[in-house]
Amino acid sequence: MSKLSQTEASGASPYGALKGKEMRSIIRSGEWTDVTTDTCHGHAQCNVVILPKDYAFEFLLFCNRNRSSCDPLEITDPGDPEPKIMAPGADLRTDVPLYRVFKNGELVDEPTDIIKYWRDDLVCFLIGSSLAFVWSLKAANVSWRYYGCYCTSIPCIPAGHFHGPVVVTVRAFPTAHDAVRAVQISSRHRQGFHGPPIHIGDPTAIGIEELGKPDDWNPYRPTIDPPKPGEIVMYWGCGVTPETVALESKTAFMITHSPAHEFITDHLAEELAIL
Amino acid sequence: MSKLSQTEASGASPYGALKGKEMRSIIRSGEWTDVTTDTCHGHAQCNVVILPKDYAFEFLLFCNRNRSSCDPLEITDPGDPEPKIMAPGADLRTDVPLYRVFKNGELVDEPTDIIKYWRDDLVCFLIGSSLAFVWSLKAANVSWRYYGCYCTSIPCIPAGHFHGPVVVTVRAFPTAHDAVRAVQISSRHRQGFHGPPIHIGDPTAIGIEELGKPDDWNPYRPTIDPPKPGEIVMYWGCGVTPETVALESKTAFMITHSPAHEFITDHLAEELAIL
Repeated sequence: MSKLSQTEASGASPYGALKGKEMRSIIRSGEWTDVTTDTCHGHAQCNVVILPKDYAFEFLLFCNRNRSSCDPLEITDPGDPEPKIMAPGADLRTDVPLYRVFKNGELVDEPTDIIKYWRDDLVCFLIGSSLAFVWSLKAANVSWRYYGCYCTSIPCIPAGHFHGPVVVTVRAFPTAHDAVRAVQISSRHRQGFHGPPIHIGDPTAIGIEELGKPDDWNPYRPTIDPPKPGEIVMYWGCGVTPETVALESKTAFMITHSPAHEFITDHLAEELAIL
Repeated sequence: MSKLSQTEASGASPYGALKGKEMRSIIRSGEWTDVTTDTCHGHAQCNVVILPKDYAFEFLLFCNRNRSSCDPLEITDPGDPEPKIMAPGADLRTDVPLYRVFKNGELVDEPTDIIKYWRDDLVCFLIGSSLAFVWSLKAANVSWRYYGCYCTSIPCIPAGHFHGPVVVTVRAFPTAHDAVRAVQISSRHRQGFHGPPIHIGDPTAIGIEELGKPDDWNPYRPTIDPPKPGEIVMYWGCGVTPETVALESKTAFMITHSPAHEFITDHLAEELAIL
């Protein structure tokens, strides 16, 4: 049911040692259509949102008002599929393993490239993934259990057409030391990423009924044990938020990456960290 | 010649103790048309850019690509002069002490309110000022000499219509300790502000002929002694950049604050700092 291991980025994959460009070339060839979680260790990976120019200003306004969920690392010029800053030479029509195509808020296709959907008015947004701080947590030997991502009852601040709930990724930490390090380390991955947690503690306070119980909305939500006494549960803004917003706002046309099938940049997350 | 003291925010003004809302009310009444540098100590102050909606997407793209110069703290909906997040109840048509109105890249007016220029398609951008980290430097007892702001030979990354040079603020620090603290502290004021310095050392390497020598472009550039041996000179992105970009891009219609006459928010800079 889940392609994602509940530990995130185990470090065991032979694809972990590849450079961004090497992995993108494998993805572009069609050889890899799986999640990118365990590939290109240390690299900044991105959630992808592609919208017609007519929507782009309001979406960028939405991003600015909801930075914990979606703070763009790069935005391409209309009609240009090359992210010239984060990955020169890449092609956002082919270099994501799996896309989702939405029309009027409905998922209509989940292709491995979007050549046939491409238009001259499309603008691509690259939104940094929480994988950035996951590499840094591992480097600092922090322990945690990963619960996957969940839709909350927290509303995004709307902007024009765009509105919807905040989606979070959830992690449980065994000690205060682990939790404190996670706050400190994720705070370093702020600009273009999700930054520090937006909630700590009770999941029901933000509308999450039960942690570890998969629902229909999120196919990659793993079944794992509920939090243990003493564990500190923390919640981070998630780049899947734009997808739920596309659904809820019934956006006429929008393409995203399929959850956990991210775009891999040429840069290490540490190159982009704040301190 | 200069309304700005070369030490920035001396702390001596009786207006330093006011809250943002109190000071804005004095500004709105027309009683205060001077620089805001020494008012509302600790508050986040903003550079202001106001553009027709037709330009707003490209300008927001420009901001995203040039965050050290202009990273918006808030963007209003078209036609709405109230910054609902940073200062609910404020009016961006009246609450800045002095504005500059540009048409086709020429300064055509410098009014104390923009009621007669307001249009239903105008979008306001609030861009955090370097005053944010100046308060924190003072709190940490860091020493420096302020050189004011300078146009450089560094080009901004263009976006659509918008292009032009990076403008920097310049400060000279007497010791490595002061310089290191300034890097650390300004790095905390990243999101919505200018973050850490973008250049250290030789001014001529970034096209600044001579520090401390006033030129025509910047009326608030103070005449002060050149750097002393051992002083470390550092350069930060400056929110005056959009004004030079408006000039160079010959933008059809754009309103900004007049340099150093900033919009004062309800929030303390420390509330918005990263760590």
